[in-house]
Amino acid sequence: MNPEEFRRRGHELIDWIADYRARVAEYPVMARTAPGEIRRRIPPSPPEAPEPFDGVLRDLEGIVVPGLSHWAHPMFFGYFPSNGELSSVLGDYASTGLGVLGLAWQSSPALTEIEEVVTDWLRQMLGLSNAWSGVIQDTAGTSTLVALCCAREKTSRYSFTRGGLHGEAAPLVVYASSHSHSSVEKAALLAGFGREHVRLVPHDGELAMRPDALETAMAADAAAGLRPCAVVATTGTTATTALDPIGPIARIASRHEAWLHVDAAMAGSAMILPECRWMWDGIEGAQSLVLNPHKWLGAAFDCSVYYVREPDVLIRVMSTNPSYLKTPADAVVKNFRDWGLPLGRRFRALKLWFLIREQGVSGLKARLRRDLENARWLADAVRATPPWRVLCPVPLQTVCVRHEPEGLSGEALDHHTLAWCDRINRSGQAYLTPALLGERWMVRVSIGAIATERHHVEALWRILQRAADPSVP
Amino acid sequence: MNPEEFRRRGHELIDWIADYRARVAEYPVMARTAPGEIRRRIPPSPPEAPEPFDGVLRDLEGIVVPGLSHWAHPMFFGYFPSNGELSSVLGDYASTGLGVLGLAWQSSPALTEIEEVVTDWLRQMLGLSNAWSGVIQDTAGTSTLVALCCAREKTSRYSFTRGGLHGEAAPLVVYASSHSHSSVEKAALLAGFGREHVRLVPHDGELAMRPDALETAMAADAAAGLRPCAVVATTGTTATTALDPIGPIARIASRHEAWLHVDAAMAGSAMILPECRWMWDGIEGAQSLVLNPHKWLGAAFDCSVYYVREPDVLIRVMSTNPSYLKTPADAVVKNFRDWGLPLGRRFRALKLWFLIREQGVSGLKARLRRDLENARWLADAVRATPPWRVLCPVPLQTVCVRHEPEGLSGEALDHHTLAWCDRINRSGQAYLTPALLGERWMVRVSIGAIATERHHVEALWRILQRAADPSVP
Repeated sequence: MNPEEFRRRGHELIDWIADYRARVAEYPVMARTAPGEIRRRIPPSPPEAPEPFDGVLRDLEGIVVPGLSHWAHPMFFGYFPSNGELSSVLGDYASTGLGVLGLAWQSSPALTEIEEVVTDWLRQMLGLSNAWSGVIQDTAGTSTLVALCCAREKTSRYSFTRGGLHGEAAPLVVYASSHSHSSVEKAALLAGFGREHVRLVPHDGELAMRPDALETAMAADAAAGLRPCAVVATTGTTATTALDPIGPIARIASRHEAWLHVDAAMAGSAMILPECRWMWDGIEGAQSLVLNPHKWLGAAFDCSVYYVREPDVLIRVMSTNPSYLKTPADAVVKNFRDWGLPLGRRFRALKLWFLIREQGVSGLKARLRRDLENARWLADAVRATPPWRVLCPVPLQTVCVRHEPEGLSGEALDHHTLAWCDRINRSGQAYLTPALLGERWMVRVSIGAIATERHHVEALWRILQRAADPSVP
Repeated sequence: MNPEEFRRRGHELIDWIADYRARVAEYPVMARTAPGEIRRRIPPSPPEAPEPFDGVLRDLEGIVVPGLSHWAHPMFFGYFPSNGELSSVLGDYASTGLGVLGLAWQSSPALTEIEEVVTDWLRQMLGLSNAWSGVIQDTAGTSTLVALCCAREKTSRYSFTRGGLHGEAAPLVVYASSHSHSSVEKAALLAGFGREHVRLVPHDGELAMRPDALETAMAADAAAGLRPCAVVATTGTTATTALDPIGPIARIASRHEAWLHVDAAMAGSAMILPECRWMWDGIEGAQSLVLNPHKWLGAAFDCSVYYVREPDVLIRVMSTNPSYLKTPADAVVKNFRDWGLPLGRRFRALKLWFLIREQGVSGLKARLRRDLENARWLADAVRATPPWRVLCPVPLQTVCVRHEPEGLSGEALDHHTLAWCDRINRSGQAYLTPALLGERWMVRVSIGAIATERHHVEALWRILQRAADPSVP
């Protein structure tokens, strides 16, 4: 496709995306297609000859859109907000259109230097000290894997330069809350620790990690000849936005010379609000932390920012320096390939740069505050309406609810909960994702899509009540 | 930014990208900015108030472009081709604009099902049997890490469910050619094998792995009580496009019950040409392979396709299934989150789908054949012009050259080589990346940017000659 055809088709696509975003509220939120239905609409073999591009664009509307669950929909309350602010989308468009790669500083200096600046902007917005250096990764799961590899190597005095984990005298142990994200255990297992050496530390009544239980577990392991290696604490767990107490955990980790990694994937965005920063009080005692601007903050997916206090450890573990990547500038620049897993890197900084500039820090703060207030409004409404219950504290934008009619408990209550949630999802009116709380299902209302205003949350509350109790008018 | 402003600004950006691509040949290929120069042009703190978007777009031209090395430039011969065909760019634009995520099939069925179809299209284009299942990852380095984690777990009978590597009776060993990509050793070290258990197998005169040396190394390890675990063979090494003999290597790996992973990151694209498939003869004996359509083939970065013959192993190693990700459809669909490292996934299939449809298989084949012919032309020209030398076989699109004037050898020759290459890069006329061949530097001419036609290669040849010998007119 030559630049002139790109110009013409690009304008068509921009118009189509603008229309899609403008009318997204008209679609059923959750896709209604059955498994295999999309697949069957596409030819099983590739076209030998070029196809007219009209048909390609037409299939966006005819094949793709019916198969989407619409994350930009104002009635999307599932999983977590994944906001691609349209200014950030344009930043990503610039990146893809330029098509440059960050293999080394020299392979496109602006890619590296704008990433340095914009991750530092974000650091300042979060109220972090200048002891932190940032780098953009794809997701929090990957960032946590990077953190655990670094922890493993630091604790083992860089066993990767010798016989690897196999050669270690004592097994290394990782600790995380039993409410930590699934990616934490996945990362620990991929990093080779083994499930027997992953401790899921008990939580308190608010589902936060209990520091006393952490201390007990670490001390017991140390006494048994194991080596406490890393603690992963979460600011805002996925199921309920519980807040592990970072300060006490940092002191315990430090005493055992263990690496503290803080997973603030979702809640980290809220730390641009000074009134929220108590939630990760003690953060300066961590060795690494991750937050995903591609969630609530509005950067187009994927944009996960990983901060470290000791870049030297990261670089030592991630470095490669083959001759074909050496450049004359290497001694005086950052080569971000040595700050994460992949060698090839997109120009991801543009989408964060565009977002922060177009919205301004004040604009981003205002939107997050709107969402926090909407969550408080919903929580209050639910609490005031038995047999509805709010099941967990609501420090952020997620409200965990259950409708508990008299006489329903145990599996019958689960059946009721999953049934009304499924009815809503299938209706297309709103999208919600249930989760287990203890052994019982509940429904998470995750507020924070850019398009979601108060009246959408009010509409959701009416939908919830009618779905759970058909007698409600 | 609302949809109407996005429409207006999007059109401006499309025009700017179209202009950029149309005029890219006018820029110096390699960025000329000094370290820190871009960084100093950006305010050190984020803007409190929103900025006018005019200024944001203006900075693309004023700040970003001067800091780019232009990978789309017809005189880009560095590293490897990273082609964002403009139709594929539009596919990526659709993905970012829709902003949906693939956490589960249900979170956007089209994202999963189009990825199933389009990776199967590519499988057919490559001449692979239908025993292979594909999934899109970000880069080959990540795919290789995934492969080595799977190999580790299969060999150790899933030690991650127990004590991890530490609990294994015998250390596991990984084998790769001494010319394998740096990401292979990085992946082995991150997966916890330890450098003492990574064998760089000697190569033959054409820089391909020697099967007899592999057999010797594996047998020696087994005899010493170690456990051969994985072999990484390369189809088209980074420095010289050497071809490890896949068939013999597969037979040896199989005899030792080791996992064979084939890294065809760059050269894999060429396997859409039947006349190139001898290069990975025996590929059906591998357990996994990776190729990067974001290199030569033209998919916008990042788009690395990882194929496996036993998805069950992959899924067992990568699976997580927390309650908040469960959906009613899970039993009958693919959840690609269990096919790689990250949980969150972009709709990457669109950029490959758009590319193949807009170009047709025939169009892609024609472009790759053009590049192969250009490489043969340059190799012939160099060979015919002493003291120039072509240093390695040229099965693909990379020509490894050196200018060897009489009397120059050793470090003096290195100095000469690096000096003329650096002169060309600094001149802005072309971009080339040197590499070590044995202990001596050479210069790689990696042909294959979409914009590169025969006359550009002819121009490069003149530039090479003048840079190496000022007396050439």
